[in-house]
Amino acid sequence: MTSIDLNSDLGESYGAWKMGDDTAMLSIVSSANIACGFHAGDPLGIRQTVKAAVERGVVIGAHVSYPDRVGFGRRDMDATSSELTADVIYQIGALQGIAAAAGGKVAYVKPHGALYNRIAHDAKQGQAVIDGIREIDPNLVLMGLAGTPILQLAEKAGLRTVAEAFADRAYTPGGELVSRREAGSVLHDTNLIGQRMLRLAREGRLEAIDGTTIKIEAHSICVHGDSPGAVAIAQAVRQTLEADGITIRSFV
Amino acid sequence: MTSIDLNSDLGESYGAWKMGDDTAMLSIVSSANIACGFHAGDPLGIRQTVKAAVERGVVIGAHVSYPDRVGFGRRDMDATSSELTADVIYQIGALQGIAAAAGGKVAYVKPHGALYNRIAHDAKQGQAVIDGIREIDPNLVLMGLAGTPILQLAEKAGLRTVAEAFADRAYTPGGELVSRREAGSVLHDTNLIGQRMLRLAREGRLEAIDGTTIKIEAHSICVHGDSPGAVAIAQAVRQTLEADGITIRSFV
Amino acid sequence: MTSIDLNSDLGESYGAWKMGDDTAMLSIVSSANIACGFHAGDPLGIRQTVKAAVERGVVIGAHVSYPDRVGFGRRDMDATSSELTADVIYQIGALQGIAAAAGGKVAYVKPHGALYNRIAHDAKQGQAVIDGIREIDPNLVLMGLAGTPILQLAEKAGLRTVAEAFADRAYTPGGELVSRREAGSVLHDTNLIGQRMLRLAREGRLEAIDGTTIKIEAHSICVHGDSPGAVAIAQAVRQTLEADGITIRSFV
Amino acid sequence: MTSIDLNSDLGESYGAWKMGDDTAMLSIVSSANIACGFHAGDPLGIRQTVKAAVERGVVIGAHVSYPDRVGFGRRDMDATSSELTADVIYQIGALQGIAAAAGGKVAYVKPHGALYNRIAHDAKQGQAVIDGIREIDPNLVLMGLAGTPILQLAEKAGLRTVAEAFADRAYTPGGELVSRREAGSVLHDTNLIGQRMLRLAREGRLEAIDGTTIKIEAHSICVHGDSPGAVAIAQAVRQTLEADGITIRSFV
Repeated sequence: MTSIDLNSDLGESYGAWKMGDDTAMLSIVSSANIACGFHAGDPLGIRQTVKAAVERGVVIGAHVSYPDRVGFGRRDMDATSSELTADVIYQIGALQGIAAAAGGKVAYVKPHGALYNRIAHDAKQGQAVIDGIREIDPNLVLMGLAGTPILQLAEKAGLRTVAEAFADRAYTPGGELVSRREAGSVLHDTNLIGQRMLRLAREGRLEAIDGTTIKIEAHSICVHGDSPGAVAIAQAVRQTLEADGITIRSFV
Repeated sequence: MTSIDLNSDLGESYGAWKMGDDTAMLSIVSSANIACGFHAGDPLGIRQTVKAAVERGVVIGAHVSYPDRVGFGRRDMDATSSELTADVIYQIGALQGIAAAAGGKVAYVKPHGALYNRIAHDAKQGQAVIDGIREIDPNLVLMGLAGTPILQLAEKAGLRTVAEAFADRAYTPGGELVSRREAGSVLHDTNLIGQRMLRLAREGRLEAIDGTTIKIEAHSICVHGDSPGAVAIAQAVRQTLEADGITIRSFV
Repeated sequence: MTSIDLNSDLGESYGAWKMGDDTAMLSIVSSANIACGFHAGDPLGIRQTVKAAVERGVVIGAHVSYPDRVGFGRRDMDATSSELTADVIYQIGALQGIAAAAGGKVAYVKPHGALYNRIAHDAKQGQAVIDGIREIDPNLVLMGLAGTPILQLAEKAGLRTVAEAFADRAYTPGGELVSRREAGSVLHDTNLIGQRMLRLAREGRLEAIDGTTIKIEAHSICVHGDSPGAVAIAQAVRQTLEADGITIRSFV
Repeated sequence: MTSIDLNSDLGESYGAWKMGDDTAMLSIVSSANIACGFHAGDPLGIRQTVKAAVERGVVIGAHVSYPDRVGFGRRDMDATSSELTADVIYQIGALQGIAAAAGGKVAYVKPHGALYNRIAHDAKQGQAVIDGIREIDPNLVLMGLAGTPILQLAEKAGLRTVAEAFADRAYTPGGELVSRREAGSVLHDTNLIGQRMLRLAREGRLEAIDGTTIKIEAHSICVHGDSPGAVAIAQAVRQTLEADGITIRSFV
């Protein structure tokens, strides 16, 4: 691979409450997963992030979620398929409107939090999300966790997909993320993270938590921006990749 | 006039709570002001109403509101211009997304409740709404109260507008609506309402609450559907107009 | 048994949206499970129902829920124990405040919808609910589904409990409710329902869906009031019981 | 005066969003105005702040607001009197419940933001707030802006009141706060602020923005904790007062 995408979750402030450093991250990433109001983001704040993304040429994705603001979309919910499909369409539409008003457009969809984790393996909720995307715009790309069934399910339905890896997360020998509840699940060593992502981009391989080598085919890397430390890691990942001749570029 | 538009507020159910008879009203009106989630409407319910409107060829408008679900958008709010513009774009975008998924589109915008009343005369909030509409889609038509300054303000900004009259409301000698707090402000006599709307369509004249005749230039008539009695009045207005040779047709 | 409690879910309107006939039901039941704002109920509406309950001497219970208004609290949610305990305390406190202002008090707690079903068997969420109740007022009684483990769990923690049965629901041979997704799960025959509840009150027995006889030890019967038909059933249950000499009286 | 109260707005985080340094402020102030969920605060976060206040012996007040989370309660709203009274009771009750569970109690009520400003002069909304307080607990004290009519209105209704001054705000010659929209409305000089508050406590006098001396009779001083600079100012106010022999003590 000579290029790879960097994505990050942005637009997650809410009214008077600020979260993350969107300005810093928009100078690092090539794709912005922008909150749509269900787990985070109010219209004015979303609009400011969308405008900044359009100005910098960062590609915009809809970061759709369960309707759970107080839980930040991190709690699994038994939404019905028809509720979920409608929720996805509503959120994408709202972000499309804000993007259009800013002279931009929504190029992809990345489900957030508990919804992201659930549809990775739950075909019923996964299909409901896919249905929503296809109905509003079949040209939207679905971003999902590398190696999980949701990607094939979406492709079977005619959607393009992009698989992503997480820069700061440990992986199991089976290629899944180590649960946040387990020791060692989140990586903090900036240099190590940069080297892991370089290897991922060059070889499609990562060292799992048990020391074995696993294959991860990913065309996007998720970096976080919710703390000064996280921004520094994101910056390091970009620099390490670019120093080795890899271009940071959206998959679109 | 040989044709006139009939519009009604629809999609105002919310989750388990039902409001109005959307199915009945969609067989009467030519334009549907559909809630966008801020005063009423959840994505699944909005989607059902939008689908039904598309099936019947009823033109879709975005019924945008202040963010006040518990108050049903009926309470005046001191939103800033930038908040209001973003809120309007978000709501229109969400409805556009749901309409696109149903094979339809949003043709106009009608502010709801307290926002509707306030912008009729408040140029600051009015301009914020106009800015939102123009930024997301300058081809959208703004529906407003016949005879109020918001219509000129919008036209000056390059928007097309449509003036509306209310079938079941009494008017002051100055051409304004009699406040709901005053006796006689709401009309209930189905036959009288039909005759008034016929005169409005034919002559552009109505009898005010003091018996004087006033001029009202309106190309759309708002009818309600939130009770069986209201649906019957709406039906009577349509029949009276059609019986006199006036076609019920959207302004679009 | 010479007396039994009748309970019903009340206060479930929300702002402009009305649900159920609280006035009618308050003349039928001895206990009112009143919504606390998380799945239904706004402060003004809750207050009106609480006032009416106090006036009629109907005992007040807090109908606590997951925070999911758009889903009416019917969707299972993976709330953490600390979130759930705090949510329960907040809701009970809010209702206690409204009750105190009306000269009444909250006597029991009945979890609503998905939370009710989940804690019947999920000891982790169940314990979180129990902890919340104990911390705010250990004299509150927990109402739960007859025959399920939550009742023992609560008693072990020092809470008094009351087991309830559902008037209009079919039971499995194992004494559980037949899922609403299955045919025959909801009963509609007013006379049959009355006779079943009489037998329940007299003998502690019901006929299960397969015709076998099961034991159900319940000191409260849940009746619904969300449709004119439901109100009629509730009225019939009361009349059938009273005609046989059974007093309708709260468990408090 | 040999003692004065210091109060601050706390519990204003919301779910994943943090605001202010409650821990730091609880070691400075004698009274905590704790958010009740309408403009800020979720049950779990409120509970943590309440527990910390109880542990440190800081007196708890209910910081009640219009229902406007996205606007942080800063937008004037035309709520009806019955809505407002019910909203006030609900919020106080919820905080009372959380306080009771933590072994504490709510001692006073301080309306927040736009509601605070409006009721200072608007007798209709002011009376609605007073009614709510009296109905839930007539022993609650109402905190209001020194010199404004709401204080007399409340006393006339039988409530005790406490007048407060703002440490970091400039005053008009008439004794009102200079609007935040005007230059010089917010003070930043830590030393100056400390000296002003010392004079206020000792003499009941402040220098107005035009250099004239005004009388302000206040028994509580509001300090902010929403930035490291604000915490430093609050600390300086406390130290300056204590160094001069004034005890920081609640009015309760």
